Amino acid sequence: MAGRYVIAAAVNCMDFFEPGCSLQRPATPLCFQCGCGPEKEPLDCELARRISHCHTFWMSTSAPNPSAILQTAFSFWSSKVLLTAVEFGVFSKLANRRLTGVELGAELKLHPRGIPDFFDALVAMKFLGREGDGPQSKYFNTPEGALFLDEKSPRYVGGILVMLNARLFKFWHDLPEALRTGKPQNEVKHGQKGLFEELYADLPKLEQFMGAMTGLSRINFEAFADKFDFSKYKTLCDIGGATGLLCIEVAKRHPKLKCTSFDLPPVEPIAKKHTAAAGLSGHIGTAAGDFFKDPLPKADVITMGMILHDWNLEKKMHLIRAAYDALPSGGALVTIEALIDDERRENVQGLLMSLNMLIEFGDAFDYSGADFRKWCSEVGFKRFEVIHLSGPSSAAVAYK
Amino acid sequence: MAGRYVIAAAVNCMDFFEPGCSLQRPATPLCFQCGCGPEKEPLDCELARRISHCHTFWMSTSAPNPSAILQTAFSFWSSKVLLTAVEFGVFSKLANRRLTGVELGAELKLHPRGIPDFFDALVAMKFLGREGDGPQSKYFNTPEGALFLDEKSPRYVGGILVMLNARLFKFWHDLPEALRTGKPQNEVKHGQKGLFEELYADLPKLEQFMGAMTGLSRINFEAFADKFDFSKYKTLCDIGGATGLLCIEVAKRHPKLKCTSFDLPPVEPIAKKHTAAAGLSGHIGTAAGDFFKDPLPKADVITMGMILHDWNLEKKMHLIRAAYDALPSGGALVTIEALIDDERRENVQGLLMSLNMLIEFGDAFDYSGADFRKWCSEVGFKRFEVIHLSGPSSAAVAYK
Repeated sequence: MAGRYVIAAAVNCMDFFEPGCSLQRPATPLCFQCGCGPEKEPLDCELARRISHCHTFWMSTSAPNPSAILQTAFSFWSSKVLLTAVEFGVFSKLANRRLTGVELGAELKLHPRGIPDFFDALVAMKFLGREGDGPQSKYFNTPEGALFLDEKSPRYVGGILVMLNARLFKFWHDLPEALRTGKPQNEVKHGQKGLFEELYADLPKLEQFMGAMTGLSRINFEAFADKFDFSKYKTLCDIGGATGLLCIEVAKRHPKLKCTSFDLPPVEPIAKKHTAAAGLSGHIGTAAGDFFKDPLPKADVITMGMILHDWNLEKKMHLIRAAYDALPSGGALVTIEALIDDERRENVQGLLMSLNMLIEFGDAFDYSGADFRKWCSEVGFKRFEVIHLSGPSSAAVAYK
Repeated sequence: MAGRYVIAAAVNCMDFFEPGCSLQRPATPLCFQCGCGPEKEPLDCELARRISHCHTFWMSTSAPNPSAILQTAFSFWSSKVLLTAVEFGVFSKLANRRLTGVELGAELKLHPRGIPDFFDALVAMKFLGREGDGPQSKYFNTPEGALFLDEKSPRYVGGILVMLNARLFKFWHDLPEALRTGKPQNEVKHGQKGLFEELYADLPKLEQFMGAMTGLSRINFEAFADKFDFSKYKTLCDIGGATGLLCIEVAKRHPKLKCTSFDLPPVEPIAKKHTAAAGLSGHIGTAAGDFFKDPLPKADVITMGMILHDWNLEKKMHLIRAAYDALPSGGALVTIEALIDDERRENVQGLLMSLNMLIEFGDAFDYSGADFRKWCSEVGFKRFEVIHLSGPSSAAVAYK
C-alpha cells in the first residue's frame, strides 16, 4: 500500500503522460496522503519520469479517486445491457449480416426511443461493431460476438446470460435480505419450487439449464482435459455429468480412457444424446443414480464440475466420502469450481459465486483449495494439488 | 481489428511471458481466425518476442475468448455487493477502526452465513483492507473507502450508491420492457409519483437526493472551475443549482465572480444553508423560479449541471433558448454531463446514462457535443467548445 501511494504522487505531474496517450491527468490532483487537493506540498515528479508506460502505470496506480468505486457502482448498467441484448437475440439475429439500427430494431420489435442508445452502448462496450456513424451506419457482430453469443455457434455461451437476465439479476436485488437472514432469495422465497426441483420436473427446462451451464463450463473442461495427467488411469466417472460435456472433452483428448457420465435418471437420455452427437458413444457410457442415496460408480478418477459448491458442509462431506469409497488407492477426486484462493484475497468471482450460492440455496457455499484439502484429509485422501484452468476457475485434486 | 488478431497469434507462445509475470497463458489457445482450437496451423511467435511488456499486451490483445463477455455478464454481482455495503454503512461503521468479520457483522446485524464471503469479496474487489487471514483477521477501510464511502467524510460519494441500490438496480431489471415500449420503468410505472414530483413533495428526501447528486458532481464541478476561462466574465448563474455546489466550487477559485444558484422555491433554503456553511454567502446569491415558466436570471455565464439530459428535445430547446435570452453577447452557456462522444463509439457511461434517462423519464436522453452544437446553432449561439472534466464527464460550451 505504501509503495502504491509513493508512486501515486506522480499523477500530479503533467509532463508524465506520453505523447499520443489517450489517458488524461485527473482534473484535480489530490494529495496522495489524505486526498485533500493540490494545495499541499508539491509532489515529486521524478518517479513519473522513470516510468515510461503510462497505460500500465495508470491502471495500477493513481491518487485516491472515486473512479473505481463509481465504475463498480454503475457496472450493473453495462451488465444489464449485455444480458438484455443476448435475451433479445441481437447477436443471433445479426449473424453474418450488417443492419442499420432501424432494421435491427424492427426485427427485435424495439421502440425507436432506445434503439441508438442500446446498440451504440454495445458498440462502445466492444460487443458489437459498427460501420460508419449516424442513422445509416450498420451494426455487425465482432468475432467474439459471432463465436460466443450467436446461438448457432458451437461455442455459444449465451445460455448463462439468459439465465442471469431472467432469474439472478432480480434475485440479487435481494442480497441485503440474504445477508441479514442467511436465506435463499430465489424462487423458493416466492413460494415456488426450488431451482433443481423445478428443473427436474420439466425436461426441456432442464436441458436448457444444462445448455447454459455447458457454455460456461466448456473452457474449463477443455483446460482440465489438457492439463491433468491421465497417464496412470484407465477409467473416469463424472458425477453430476449433465450433458456429458466433461467426459466428451476428456475422451476427445484421451481416447484410451473409459469415461462414464453419472447423473439422475431423467438426465441419462440427455447425456446419451450429446455423447452420440459428438461421435464418442464408444468411449463414454452413462450411469443413473442419486449421488446422495446411491454409491458412486467405481472409477480411477472421479470428477465433479460445479457440483460441490451447491451444497452445505454436511452434504459436501457426504460427496467427498462417497468419492473416496469409489476410488482405488492412488485414484483422484477432482472438483472444478471458481475455487477461492486460500487467503480469500484474490478470486473475486469465487467469492461472489459463494454469495450466489447464498442467494440460490442459503447454506451452500464456495470454498478454497485449503478447505478442500482439509475436508479430504479428514476422509483419508493423502495428496493434494490445485491446477489453474481458465479465468477464475481451477481444479482441486485429492489423491487417495 | 485485423492488427489485433495478428498480434493475438502470439498468445499461443509459451515463452512469451516474462519471468515473474502472474498472467497465465490461456489453457486452450484458440485459432485466431475462427476460435477452433490449437489443431490448426502453428502460430507465429516472433511478434510475441518483440513485445516485452506482457501485462499491457495481455490486456490489450488476446485470441477471441469469452472472458470480456462473462466479466460484463456477471458484473452486476460486484455492483450489488458494493452498493449493499454502502447501504449497510460498512465503511462508515468501520471508520478508523479494525474489526473482525464477526464484530463488524454484529454491528450490521448480519446473519453469520454471508459474513466472510461479503467482507472478503469487498477485500478482493479492493474496497476493504484486511489484516491477516482467517476468522481473527481484521477488516479496515482503504484510503479510498475512508475518503469516499464513509458518510462522515467531506468527499463522501455514497449517496448516489444508496440511490442506485434502493431504486435503479430494481428499475434497470425492466430494461427489456423499456426498450420495447419506450416508457419509463421507475416509480411512475408502479402508479407512484414521478421522481421529481415525489422529491419536491418531501424536503428531507429532496435534500438526500441532492446530497447523492453532489457526491457525483463535485469532481466535475471542481474540474470545471479549474479549467474554464472565467477571465472575461463577472457573473455566473447555475440553473438547477440544487445545494449550490457548482457556485461554491467556482466561487472558491474565482472570488471576483458573482455567482447565483437558481432552482425551484423549495430548494432555495437548502442552497442558502450550504453556501453559508462554505463561508461563501458573500460571493453566492440564490434565486428561485421554474426554468420552464420563468425567464432565467441574466448572467455572463449560465451553467446547467446534469440538467439538460433530464428532458426531451422540445424542453431541451426551451432551456437553450432561455439561456440565450439571459446571456449578453459573448456570454457562455455551459452544460456539464456524461457527454457522449460525437461518433457514439467511446463514452460507455454517457450512452448508458442515456438509457438511464429512458428508465427514469422515457423520452429524455443524453447527447453529444455535436448534438449540443447543432441545437445551440439553431438558437443563435456562435462558437462552441467541449472541455473534458473527469472520467466520462465533459463541459459543452456555447458562446453567444
